[in-house]
Amino acid sequence: MTTLTDIALDASAPINQDADYATDSAAAQSAVETAHASLSGSQIEAMHREYVMQSWHKQGEPVTAISHAQGIYFWDYAGNRYTDMSSLLVCSNLGHELPQITDAIKRQADVMCFMSPAYATDPKSRLAKMLVDIAGADHFQRVFFTNGGADSNENAIKMARMVTGRPKIFSCYRSYHGSTIGASNASGDWRRFATEIGGSAPGFVHFMNPNMYEDGYVRGVDDARATAEYLHRLDEQLQYEGPDSVAAILMESIVGANGVILPPEGYMEGVRALCDKYGILLICDEVMAGFARTGTMFAWQNFDMVPDMITFAKGVTCGYVPLGGVIVSRAISEYFTDHVLQCGLTYSGHTLACAAGVAAVSYYLEHDIPGHVKQMEAVLKPFLEEMAAKHKCVGEARCIGLFSALTIVKNKANRTLMAPYHDAHSVMPSIMAQLMKRGFATFGRESNINICPPLTITAQQLEEELPKLDEVLTWVDETYCD
Amino acid sequence: MTTLTDIALDASAPINQDADYATDSAAAQSAVETAHASLSGSQIEAMHREYVMQSWHKQGEPVTAISHAQGIYFWDYAGNRYTDMSSLLVCSNLGHELPQITDAIKRQADVMCFMSPAYATDPKSRLAKMLVDIAGADHFQRVFFTNGGADSNENAIKMARMVTGRPKIFSCYRSYHGSTIGASNASGDWRRFATEIGGSAPGFVHFMNPNMYEDGYVRGVDDARATAEYLHRLDEQLQYEGPDSVAAILMESIVGANGVILPPEGYMEGVRALCDKYGILLICDEVMAGFARTGTMFAWQNFDMVPDMITFAKGVTCGYVPLGGVIVSRAISEYFTDHVLQCGLTYSGHTLACAAGVAAVSYYLEHDIPGHVKQMEAVLKPFLEEMAAKHKCVGEARCIGLFSALTIVKNKANRTLMAPYHDAHSVMPSIMAQLMKRGFATFGRESNINICPPLTITAQQLEEELPKLDEVLTWVDETYCD
Repeated sequence: MTTLTDIALDASAPINQDADYATDSAAAQSAVETAHASLSGSQIEAMHREYVMQSWHKQGEPVTAISHAQGIYFWDYAGNRYTDMSSLLVCSNLGHELPQITDAIKRQADVMCFMSPAYATDPKSRLAKMLVDIAGADHFQRVFFTNGGADSNENAIKMARMVTGRPKIFSCYRSYHGSTIGASNASGDWRRFATEIGGSAPGFVHFMNPNMYEDGYVRGVDDARATAEYLHRLDEQLQYEGPDSVAAILMESIVGANGVILPPEGYMEGVRALCDKYGILLICDEVMAGFARTGTMFAWQNFDMVPDMITFAKGVTCGYVPLGGVIVSRAISEYFTDHVLQCGLTYSGHTLACAAGVAAVSYYLEHDIPGHVKQMEAVLKPFLEEMAAKHKCVGEARCIGLFSALTIVKNKANRTLMAPYHDAHSVMPSIMAQLMKRGFATFGRESNINICPPLTITAQQLEEELPKLDEVLTWVDETYCD
Repeated sequence: MTTLTDIALDASAPINQDADYATDSAAAQSAVETAHASLSGSQIEAMHREYVMQSWHKQGEPVTAISHAQGIYFWDYAGNRYTDMSSLLVCSNLGHELPQITDAIKRQADVMCFMSPAYATDPKSRLAKMLVDIAGADHFQRVFFTNGGADSNENAIKMARMVTGRPKIFSCYRSYHGSTIGASNASGDWRRFATEIGGSAPGFVHFMNPNMYEDGYVRGVDDARATAEYLHRLDEQLQYEGPDSVAAILMESIVGANGVILPPEGYMEGVRALCDKYGILLICDEVMAGFARTGTMFAWQNFDMVPDMITFAKGVTCGYVPLGGVIVSRAISEYFTDHVLQCGLTYSGHTLACAAGVAAVSYYLEHDIPGHVKQMEAVLKPFLEEMAAKHKCVGEARCIGLFSALTIVKNKANRTLMAPYHDAHSVMPSIMAQLMKRGFATFGRESNINICPPLTITAQQLEEELPKLDEVLTWVDETYCD
C-alpha cells in the first residue's frame, strides 16, 4: 500500500483547528457568525420571516419567537406567558421539559445518539417491547419505527398492500393522516388538494364518516340509527368498489385535527365487523389520539374492537425527539417472516428518539396518566357542556379524556357553522386570536376550537385557564352570532 | 364556573406518585419492568428479533446489538470494535459523539426540546439562515424543514407542482429518494416496487442516467460522447412526454446508495440547460452527497450549475437528531409569498434537531471539513485506483471527496457484474460479511461496495482500515472471479 500520504493527524484531537486552515469564504464566515451571534427575540422573528418556509401559510407573515417552555407553559422574548391548551399540535402530552424525558435524552446523547436500523440498540428493543405490551401482546407482535405520523401511515399503507396483495385503501373524508404523497392522498380534508395536482395516487378511496352534530343527529339519542346508516353506506361503497380489492380501512380512532369527532356508539365496532367480513385490514391512526390522550393508552381501547395495525407518533416522545411507528398484529408480522419487508428509512428506530420514548411511555404508566386524564375529564367535560348550554355560539361540545373540541356556530337553531367548509374568509382565526391574546394558546380547523392541554394539567390549572375560553365565547356570541 | 371539582394538585409536583394510584394492569407492569430492566447484549438482540420490524429484511433474523459509539468507531456488547466505513447510512459525517453536537443537544434539551412550526425559535432561525448562506444567498432564499430525506423529496415534489402547475416529475432509474409513496415513486431502484402495488402514482417518469462503466464507456476518454448521448436521449424523452407538463427533474447530485455514480463531465450542466430550455425546475437531492461529503458543502457545487431546490437530511445533523429539509430559490420562495404553501408537518423546524444542525454546520465550516475531505481524498482515491488496477474483481473505482464505491465484477474483461440486477442469490452479502468480520463496517447495493467513512477520519486511520479491504478483495478474486 504505497499510495497513502503521511497526513497522519492525531485521531483523538479535533482536526483542523488552525484558523488559517478554516473555510474562509464570505458565505461560510456569515454562517459561522450566525451560529454564534447573540440574538434578540425580534432578530429571531425577522430571520424566521426571511429564511424559514412556514407550513400552510403565505411566506413572510408576522411570527412570535418563543424562548423557553416548562410544564404547560411557554414564553416569548418579551416575557409573556402562554398556556399550551393544545399540547402544541397535540403532541406535548406530558408538558414541556419533563425532567424524566430530558434526562433520558441527555444520558443517551452521552453514549450514542444514533445507530442505523441494521443493528439492535437498547432503547429500540426496550421501546418496541413496551409498545407491544401496552397494545396487547396477545394480538400484536412487532413495531416498525418511523420519524413521525405521516411516515407511519405511509408505511402502514405499504404493509397492508404487501400483505393482502390488494391495491385499495379506504379512508375518511373527515380525517387527516399527514402531508406526504401517500398520507396526503389518504387524508380527507382540503390539505390533500396540492398533492393531487396531476391526479390522485391510485387506490385511495374516501368514504364519509359520521359527524353526528353536523349531520343533524342528536348524540345519546340517535347513535344506533347513525351507526346503522353510516355502516350501511360504507358496506354499500365497499361492495361497489369490490371488497376483494380493498387492502385496508385507515381511520383515526377518534378524528383529531378535524374537531375531535366522537363516533356514534357502535360505529367503530361495526367498521371492524365489515373488515372481518371482507378480509380487510383495519389501521387505526393513533397519532393524535394515542398515548393516554383519551384516558386509555390507545384511543381504540375505548371501543370493543382491536385493529390490525396501530400508527403512532407525537405522544410517544411528546415531541421531544421526532419519532413515529406502526405496531403490527401477529398475523402481519408473521407474513414478513417469510417475505422481505419492503419498507425502510435511515432513522427507523432512532436511538435518541427511542430513549425519549422509553422515558415518556414509562412515565405515562408509572404515574397512571390515563387515570389522571379521567379525573381531569371530570373537570373539563362538564365545563364544556356548560359552555354549550350557555353560549349561542357553541353548537356542540365533545370531550373524551383531555381530547376535546367545540363546534362554533353562527346560528344554533339550524346548526349553521361559523364558517363554510374551506372558507378563505372564515372569522375563526379572529376567534383564535382572542384566545391567544389571553394567553390561551390552541388551534382549531374549520368551525372547531380544539382544547387538548398537556395530560399533566391539574384541576387548579384548568380552573385558571377555562374562564378565558368562557370570556371569548361570550365575545363570539355578541360579535358573530345571529 | 360551578363544574370544577376540587382535585387541585400542586402544579409544581409530579402528579400521581402514589403506588396505589398507578396503572396496575399486567401489561403496564411488564412495560415498566422492561423500561428499567438491566439488559445484556444478547437480551437486546433477542428483543429486537422478537419485537422490532427490520427494514428491507425478513423478520426475526440474527442481529448484533451495539452498545456505544465514538468517533469513527462503534462497539458491540462483547467489546468488538467496528470501524464505521460508511458513516452508517452516509449520515454520521462528523463521526459519533462529537462533543460540539452532543453539548448543543444537551443545552437545548434544558431549555425547550420542541416548539411547533407556527412559532419562531432561535435554532430554527439560525439554521435556516446558515443553510441559505452556504447554498448561496444570491440565488436561494428560504428553507422548509422536514424530518428526513424522503420527507424532503416529498415536499420538493409538491412545491414544484404547486409553483409550475405542471404534474410530471422526471427522475433517474439509477437513484433512490426514499420509501414514502411520493419519494418511492420517484426512486429508480427496485425498492419502489412495493409502492407500486395497484399502480404507480401519476406523473412520475423515469429516465436512464449514465453509469459510464456499466454502459461500456471509458471515464476520462468518453465523457463528451456519453454526455451528448445521454442528454440527447433525455431531451427526446422530455419532448415525447411534453416538456410543458414537466414540473421538475429530481436528481441526486451524485447518485449515492446505487454506487456513487459519478456523472460524465458536462452532464449535470447539460441537464440544467434542458431545464432552462423548457422552464423545468431542477431539484438536487443532496441527502447523501451533501454536507462536505464530496469536499464541497453541497455536491452540486462540484459542477458549473445551480439547482432550484436542494433537498437535504443526514449530514445536516449527522443523524444525531432526525432532520431534513428543502432549500428553495428566491423565485420559488417569492411564489409562496402570494400563495399558501400547502406543505406542513408537526416537526417542521424541530427545535432540538435544529440546535444539533447549527452545531454540526458550524463545525463543518469552522474546521474546514471540506478542505480536510479533499486532503483525505488524496489518500483514498489513489488507494482505490490501485485496487482497481490490482484486483480481478474490481471493475471500476469511483471517488470524490470521501464519497466512493467499487464496482465488483465477475469478469473484468467483459465487465460482467458480480451479481445480476436485483438478484436474490447475489454473493455480495458474503463479501460484505468478510469485511464486517474484519471490523470494516460498510454497505453496498447490487455489485457495489460503498466506502464513505466519517469526514473526520485521519490519514492514519485510513491507513489502518484500507488494508482490510485489499485483503477481502484478494479473497473475492480467488473465490468468485472467472
